[in-house]
Amino acid sequence: MKIALCQLNSVIGNLEFNKQNILEGYKRGVEAGADLVISPELSLVGYPPRDLVEKSEFRLAVKNAMNEIANSTKDIGLIFGSITEDDDLIGTNIHNSALLAFNGKIQFIQNKSLIPNYDVFDEMRYFDSAKKIEVFEYKGEKLGISICEDIWNDEDYWYRRRYSEDPVKELIEKGATLLINISASPYFFGKRKERADMLSLLCKKDSIPLAYVCCVGAQTDLIFDGASMCFNGNGELTRLGKNYKEDFFIFDTKNDSALNDNCEESFEEEVLNSLIYGVKEYSRKLHFKKALVGLSGGIDSAMVTYVAVKALGKENVNVVLMPSKYSSEGSINDSVKLINKLGISHRNVTIQPVVDKVLEILLPKLEKELIGITEENLQARIRGIYLMAFANNDNYLLLSTGNKSEMAVGYCTLYGDMNGGLAVLADVYKTDVYRLANYINRSDEIIPTEIIKKPPSAELKHGQTDQDSLPPYDLLDKILRMYLEENKEINQITSVIGNKEVVKKVLRLVDINEFKRYQAPPALKVSRKAFGYGRRFPIVQGWRN
Amino acid sequence: MKIALCQLNSVIGNLEFNKQNILEGYKRGVEAGADLVISPELSLVGYPPRDLVEKSEFRLAVKNAMNEIANSTKDIGLIFGSITEDDDLIGTNIHNSALLAFNGKIQFIQNKSLIPNYDVFDEMRYFDSAKKIEVFEYKGEKLGISICEDIWNDEDYWYRRRYSEDPVKELIEKGATLLINISASPYFFGKRKERADMLSLLCKKDSIPLAYVCCVGAQTDLIFDGASMCFNGNGELTRLGKNYKEDFFIFDTKNDSALNDNCEESFEEEVLNSLIYGVKEYSRKLHFKKALVGLSGGIDSAMVTYVAVKALGKENVNVVLMPSKYSSEGSINDSVKLINKLGISHRNVTIQPVVDKVLEILLPKLEKELIGITEENLQARIRGIYLMAFANNDNYLLLSTGNKSEMAVGYCTLYGDMNGGLAVLADVYKTDVYRLANYINRSDEIIPTEIIKKPPSAELKHGQTDQDSLPPYDLLDKILRMYLEENKEINQITSVIGNKEVVKKVLRLVDINEFKRYQAPPALKVSRKAFGYGRRFPIVQGWRN
Repeated sequence: MKIALCQLNSVIGNLEFNKQNILEGYKRGVEAGADLVISPELSLVGYPPRDLVEKSEFRLAVKNAMNEIANSTKDIGLIFGSITEDDDLIGTNIHNSALLAFNGKIQFIQNKSLIPNYDVFDEMRYFDSAKKIEVFEYKGEKLGISICEDIWNDEDYWYRRRYSEDPVKELIEKGATLLINISASPYFFGKRKERADMLSLLCKKDSIPLAYVCCVGAQTDLIFDGASMCFNGNGELTRLGKNYKEDFFIFDTKNDSALNDNCEESFEEEVLNSLIYGVKEYSRKLHFKKALVGLSGGIDSAMVTYVAVKALGKENVNVVLMPSKYSSEGSINDSVKLINKLGISHRNVTIQPVVDKVLEILLPKLEKELIGITEENLQARIRGIYLMAFANNDNYLLLSTGNKSEMAVGYCTLYGDMNGGLAVLADVYKTDVYRLANYINRSDEIIPTEIIKKPPSAELKHGQTDQDSLPPYDLLDKILRMYLEENKEINQITSVIGNKEVVKKVLRLVDINEFKRYQAPPALKVSRKAFGYGRRFPIVQGWRN
Repeated sequence: MKIALCQLNSVIGNLEFNKQNILEGYKRGVEAGADLVISPELSLVGYPPRDLVEKSEFRLAVKNAMNEIANSTKDIGLIFGSITEDDDLIGTNIHNSALLAFNGKIQFIQNKSLIPNYDVFDEMRYFDSAKKIEVFEYKGEKLGISICEDIWNDEDYWYRRRYSEDPVKELIEKGATLLINISASPYFFGKRKERADMLSLLCKKDSIPLAYVCCVGAQTDLIFDGASMCFNGNGELTRLGKNYKEDFFIFDTKNDSALNDNCEESFEEEVLNSLIYGVKEYSRKLHFKKALVGLSGGIDSAMVTYVAVKALGKENVNVVLMPSKYSSEGSINDSVKLINKLGISHRNVTIQPVVDKVLEILLPKLEKELIGITEENLQARIRGIYLMAFANNDNYLLLSTGNKSEMAVGYCTLYGDMNGGLAVLADVYKTDVYRLANYINRSDEIIPTEIIKKPPSAELKHGQTDQDSLPPYDLLDKILRMYLEENKEINQITSVIGNKEVVKKVLRLVDINEFKRYQAPPALKVSRKAFGYGRRFPIVQGWRN
């Protein structure tokens, strides 16, 4: 059987656009001689639609669009993803469904069985689980159709499983000769490889081919990297969709031969491309053409500027230099060097007269003596005001520049350097920011070496470096990785690190800065556990080990 | 049977404190001659613990504390709430459990069956459902123990049910002679009455008494109002716990007579007390003694100041007056009147010199001509900087003052008047703020009449009023209520309101301002649907009806 895979980039809630996109893919598939055309999970509504699915007028509009799609089909089948409703009056009565339409009608619906509800997934909030799982006979094959998570519960692959049921096993027991999985699988580094390994094993074990079609695009903080995959019954990868763009290709379930392609790229390549794509998509979908970055002379803002240039073009990136009396000569020179290298425009504004004016007015009104942190925050906040004024007035998307290490320990100012519509690096540890910078410079010095080599500093007081108040980043990131990604705690981490005091200090900083992160902009997710939607801790809590 | 109800205020994650609190309640119950002592859902860990339950060292500490509690019991039973683990390697392997301990051991565990996963509830993220439901014979009674949501699925009460199972029905079928429900039920107006009605009906239908013990306290945005309830087998309320404080009382299941008490208070009384309690608890649990409010002369900041005074005492509230050239004479006089009435301290600072200085520096650097909104936001942000400087330096909790109507349509400045650790009124519509103000003034003019009577204005330009850019608040709030609380949309709302254009405008404003609310401080929840944790919409989305 020839299956056309449409790796689509839906816009959440834009039913008209998504419908047309699905129908264009269908048309293309029919013209290319496919027997069946497939498109991703919830491709009609976009993923994740979140509380939109709780709106009855939205669901009605979805139903109409769904029928319009079905009406447009001829004798070639089209599988697409949408929400559907049941009427048993128990549960949400809403399903995350794969619909198979041909000859002008919806002929078969398979609802999702396994409803993910961990990390960034909230699907049990919205979707009831499928009541039955069935194969569908189509053009000589028995199609075993499943949706994303449905295929992630194989008992031979997982030691610890999230669900007791295995819908794919059930499909195979019911005689499926061909597996189809429609997905929306948010990116993190390592996931592409994990997908390929798991799916390959599954196909090999049951000697069954699989067409796995993913969406592509970014939706606020979540990046969908594409890379739809097809496997033959030997578990060999035979087709692989593009990364970070829509794609269309035909999978011949019987005749395709094994690809000699490795779906995984290096950490640097993958993460950098994901960040660039995330910025590009967020800007495009919110109709921002231009991005603004506050350039400090440090590595983070240099990196964000580079990402913005790659995402939007050098003519659409403007940076603001805002030195103070604490800024080193180097910071300004290094910034100018980067600006010239990237060929972008910049503005230069001084903050000192405003800092002085504010302090002049506030000092007599303070109850306590002025403390250092008040003045440091003040500088960061005045810079934040400048950036927002430029962004508001000249219609730029302000990108915030804090990295994951800083966000973790609260080494950032709320309403200051945290300002922005999107946090580009908030899921990238400081040490990984350096890795990315060195990678960018692998054949040409784009990010000035001086920026990479200098000791990290917020430059909010004389001679300040980050290491005055934080452990060295190598150590800090090691602790953070265990705490955040691996859910380890003080005893487990200390047994690796040795120094209990430093571990304790770092963990405490992470915990007490929940209030800052609560008000942070959305952060592009590139790791297994990012701050934001997928990590939920109380602000008010007293757990200490 | 005599049951002692301990209506406890746990601190999330503070196991030592919570353990002691449970044991003190137990001791008190034993001394008062109770046959059984009960305490609320997850009373050992605090509710909601969120991702803390994913930490294995946390769970280990919980297990130890659980055993310490059990070890302290004698022949009188103690029921308390905690997390427990199973080892079937499927699902999360964690349960939300009611534990019954006596004679130094945990004698019986009933896990929660119905796992809520809507609005502010995310429990399916953490908890597997109970595998079995059993009654427990104890001192001549068959105890039917359930946990919170378990009792909220009665098929005779609900037309549309969330779950197919009914654990309470099952307990009764298994011969339960006495129902015990341990709960953590977040407040919203109307819920106390709903609880009483539903529980009463259930007891009456099955002629069975019920002891329903709730936690009390506030956890960041969620308020737990207490009001534990006991019903006899006629469905009559026989005992009622205090609102907004810990309580302890004995329920005699056979001999208590019906109370002549109405658990519900007026909207004004309930909501005002909830807000005061929310501020009090947030401050106390984060160890803030003092609160700071920016006082504009408008109704919202006046209301927040009043709430802060009631929560923390007049000596612990400081307000900041920050007039600009657009502030009316009245605004300042009215503020001073309120300050005198409440007997609080204040500071007066001018923003104009800083606005002028910033504009002087920024104007030559703007790409486009200065637009009004840039300047308006600038004023709000400079005020925000002042407030944060005072809060940082003098150790105040800054309270933000925006109401729900403003937050809905984005009539507020990010990093400006939205600044703060807690948003006090962000779940109270503007028209309800007036209701509360009139209620406060019912016997004495506390909030100056001038503040209540003047047309609402942000005073960010000359002669500005809110109604220059928004529909009248009566109309706006009517639309918002339908959109936010009732999930209605443009067609349904227009059929009530009539004017489609105005409905469309309001709905669009709500949708496009998701990005602002994403970065807003936590908001005290007092309605069925508050912004924040319980309302989840994508920032990037294209749904328009």
